[in-house]
Amino acid sequence: MIGLSSYAGVMESLMNSAEEQQPSSPLANSWSKIQESSKNQTPKCVGGFVLVHAGAGYHSESKAKEYKHVCKRACQRAVDQLKAGALAVEAVAAALVELEDSPFTNAGMGSNLNLSGEIECDASIMDGKSLHYGAVGAISGIKNPVLVANRLLSEAQKGKLSAGRIPPCFLVGRGAHDWAVSHGIPPCPSEKMASKFSLSAYKRNKRKMELAEKIDTGHTHAKKRRQSSENENGSGCLDTVGAVVIDLEGNVAAAVSSGGLAMKHPGRVGQAAHYGCGCWAENACSMNSHSTAVSTSGCGEHLIRTMLARECSAAMQSEDAHQALLEAMQNKFISSPFLAGEDRVLGGVIVLRCCRCVEPPPSQNIQGILVEFLWSHTTESMCVGYMSAQDSKAKTHISRLPPGTVPGQCLAIEGGVCRLMSVVE
Amino acid sequence: MIGLSSYAGVMESLMNSAEEQQPSSPLANSWSKIQESSKNQTPKCVGGFVLVHAGAGYHSESKAKEYKHVCKRACQRAVDQLKAGALAVEAVAAALVELEDSPFTNAGMGSNLNLSGEIECDASIMDGKSLHYGAVGAISGIKNPVLVANRLLSEAQKGKLSAGRIPPCFLVGRGAHDWAVSHGIPPCPSEKMASKFSLSAYKRNKRKMELAEKIDTGHTHAKKRRQSSENENGSGCLDTVGAVVIDLEGNVAAAVSSGGLAMKHPGRVGQAAHYGCGCWAENACSMNSHSTAVSTSGCGEHLIRTMLARECSAAMQSEDAHQALLEAMQNKFISSPFLAGEDRVLGGVIVLRCCRCVEPPPSQNIQGILVEFLWSHTTESMCVGYMSAQDSKAKTHISRLPPGTVPGQCLAIEGGVCRLMSVVE
Repeated sequence: MIGLSSYAGVMESLMNSAEEQQPSSPLANSWSKIQESSKNQTPKCVGGFVLVHAGAGYHSESKAKEYKHVCKRACQRAVDQLKAGALAVEAVAAALVELEDSPFTNAGMGSNLNLSGEIECDASIMDGKSLHYGAVGAISGIKNPVLVANRLLSEAQKGKLSAGRIPPCFLVGRGAHDWAVSHGIPPCPSEKMASKFSLSAYKRNKRKMELAEKIDTGHTHAKKRRQSSENENGSGCLDTVGAVVIDLEGNVAAAVSSGGLAMKHPGRVGQAAHYGCGCWAENACSMNSHSTAVSTSGCGEHLIRTMLARECSAAMQSEDAHQALLEAMQNKFISSPFLAGEDRVLGGVIVLRCCRCVEPPPSQNIQGILVEFLWSHTTESMCVGYMSAQDSKAKTHISRLPPGTVPGQCLAIEGGVCRLMSVVE
Repeated sequence: MIGLSSYAGVMESLMNSAEEQQPSSPLANSWSKIQESSKNQTPKCVGGFVLVHAGAGYHSESKAKEYKHVCKRACQRAVDQLKAGALAVEAVAAALVELEDSPFTNAGMGSNLNLSGEIECDASIMDGKSLHYGAVGAISGIKNPVLVANRLLSEAQKGKLSAGRIPPCFLVGRGAHDWAVSHGIPPCPSEKMASKFSLSAYKRNKRKMELAEKIDTGHTHAKKRRQSSENENGSGCLDTVGAVVIDLEGNVAAAVSSGGLAMKHPGRVGQAAHYGCGCWAENACSMNSHSTAVSTSGCGEHLIRTMLARECSAAMQSEDAHQALLEAMQNKFISSPFLAGEDRVLGGVIVLRCCRCVEPPPSQNIQGILVEFLWSHTTESMCVGYMSAQDSKAKTHISRLPPGTVPGQCLAIEGGVCRLMSVVE
C-alpha cells in the first residue's frame, strides 16, 4: 500500500542511496524537491497531467522567459483539452501545437533551416491506449507537423484502406505534405515558417561553415573532419519540443516535434520521426504494471542509435523511477556501446509513469492515480513545464548542468510526483 | 563443450520438446533438417557465411525458379566478397545489390509502383562491429538503394562534417537522391526501374482499387473500410529482400531493401528504412554472448510497430535459438499487443547467430565459429538461400506454410547449423 507521503519518502531516500552508490560518478544529481502539485485541492471529475519540454540544448538567460512562457501556454492548452474530456493523445497534440507555433523553439514555425535554406520538419505521436503511432519526416510547408502525425495515427486506427491497402504510419517529404493537404490540413508558405532567429542563425552558420572549410583547405579530408569536431551543434540549439500526458482514465500519450539540426542535409530525418526514438507511450497492461510516456530531445542521430525513448520507457517498469532513469541515461545513453565513438552524447528526456493508487480511497467514490514525472539531460540545459488539471497554472523550470560539468558526459536529473483524484460518478 | 554433432542433437531434441509443449498451437513447425554445410570440407584461411531472403509473401510456383536463382546469385556475390577478405558489412551489401537488380523482387529494379505510378524505395544496413547504421527512405531514381544506405553508414564512421555538423544516418526523398548523386552514386531514370511485372501489377491493382471504390459507393466510410479488409496485399507480393552475413572474424552485418507495398501513398516509408525494424546486427560483446544478425520482410507497418528485427536479435541471446525465435514470432509478432487490432500479421525474418567454438580445436592452428541460421514467416511462403565460403554453391529453398494453415495467424520455422573453420596463420 503506497500513500502519497510515504511514497515521497521513498523517493527521497532512494535519491540519497543513488548518490551514495556513485560517489565518483560524473553525475550531476539535482533531484531536488518533490512536487505535490495536486495536494490540498478539491477532487474534480475531470483531470490529468501534462509535462512538456522546449528542448534539451542551450537556453540563454536572455530567452529564458520566452521558453518558460511557451511551456506554460503548452501546458495550459493540454489541460484545457483534458478538462473538456479529451483523451491523452488529443491533449498531447494540443500541447505540441503551442510549442510548434512559438518562433523560439526549433519545431514548426521558426525551425532551423537546412543546408539549402529550407525548413523540413519531423514529428511523431504515440497513443499508449491503442499503441498506434504516426510520424512525418522532412515535411515542408506545414505549420504544425504534429497534426499530420496525429492524423496518420487516427486514420490508421480506422482500419484498412480501399482494396485492402494498409494505411501508412510514416510519411516523408513531398508525399507527406500532399497527404496532409488532401486530409484538410492547410499548407503554409515555407517563407512564413522561418523566424528572424532561424534566418539569422542560418546566415551565421553559413558563414561559420564557409570559414571552417576555408581554414581546412590543404588538410587531408580525414584530418579535416576530425579537427572540426569541436562542434557548434555540440551543446547549441537543439530545441526539439515534446510532451507527455496522462488523462484521468490513466491513458498516456507522447509526442515530439523538431526542425532538426541546423544546416542538416536536405532529406535528413532525426529522432523526432523515428519510432521508439522520439517518443513512446504504453498504457499499463498484463505485462507492464506502469503506464509510461517519454519524449526526447537533443542530437537526433544519438537518440536514434540508442532508441532512447523506448529504452527509458522500458526502464520505467523498475521499482524506483528515479534510479531507473538515472541508470538508463548513464548506461543506455552516455555509455551506450552504440555511441562508443562519440565524445559527447547530447540529449534529454521527459518521462512520466503512473499506476492506480492501491490504498483504499478516502471515500468510495474517489479514485486516485499516482503520477511520477522526471526529466534528465546531458545538454547544458533543458526547459520543462508541467501542470495537472487541478492546478491553476503551470510550473516551469530551466534545468541546467551544474557549473564545471561537461555537457555530453554528465547528466542532470530532476522530477516530482503528483496525485490525481477524481470523483467517480 | 559443444561439438557439431552433439549440437545438432541438441537442436533436434529441442525441436521435439517445443512441439510437445505446444500441442494445440496453430504453429506449423517444419524445422526439418540440420544442414551441415561445411562438414567434410577442407578448412581455408578465408571464410564466412551468408543467408539471404527474396521476401516473405507469396512465391508462385511459376516464378519459384527465378526466386531461387536470384538467391543463389546473391549468396555467391557475398561469398566472393568474403573470399576476397571483405568484412561482413561489405559482403551483405554485395548480396543486396544482386537481390535489388532482379526484376522479380520488390526492391531496386522492378519495385512495386506507388499510388502515383512511381517507384520509391527503402533500404537500410547495419554493421554489427561498429554498430553504425545507414538508411534511405522513399528514394527515387537510384538503382541500388542499399548502396546509398551503405555509403551513409561509412560516411558516418568518418566522424563529424565541417563546422562540427553530425553526419546523417537516415535520408529520405529528394534529399537522399541528391546526396547519393553528390557522393558518386549514379542516378537511374525512374522509367528504367519498373519491370514488366511491376507495371502490369500496377495496372491490375489500379483496376482493382477503382472497382473496390465503385462497389463501395453508397456504403458508409467506416463500413467501406472494414468490408474491404479481405486484402490483396494480405499474403500477396511482399517481396522485400535482405541478407545477414558473418565474416570469419566473427563480425556480423544485416541489410534489407524494399520497394514497399504496392499502391502505397507517395512518401510512405516502411520497415526497410526503419532502425530496429528492417534489420539488426550486433557483434558479441561483454553483455551479449552471441553475435546476431536479422533481416525482416513482410508488411512494413506490422514490422515497424513490433520492431521485429531488434526483438528477434534480443531473443537470440537465449540458450536455444530455435525456441527463442519461435517464441519471439509468436509473442512479439503474431500475438503482439502492438498489433492487437490486426486480423492477419504478415512478416518473416531471417536470423543468424554465432559464437566462437569452445571445444579445443583439433589442431592448434584451426579456429572455428559455430553459426546457427533460421528463418520464420507467417506469410504463405518465404524464399531463402544460404552458403558458407567453404561451399561450392548456395542452397536455396522456398519455405511454405503447411496446407490448411492461415497466413498471418500461423508460422513456419526452419533452420540449420554450420561450422566455419579457418587456419590461423
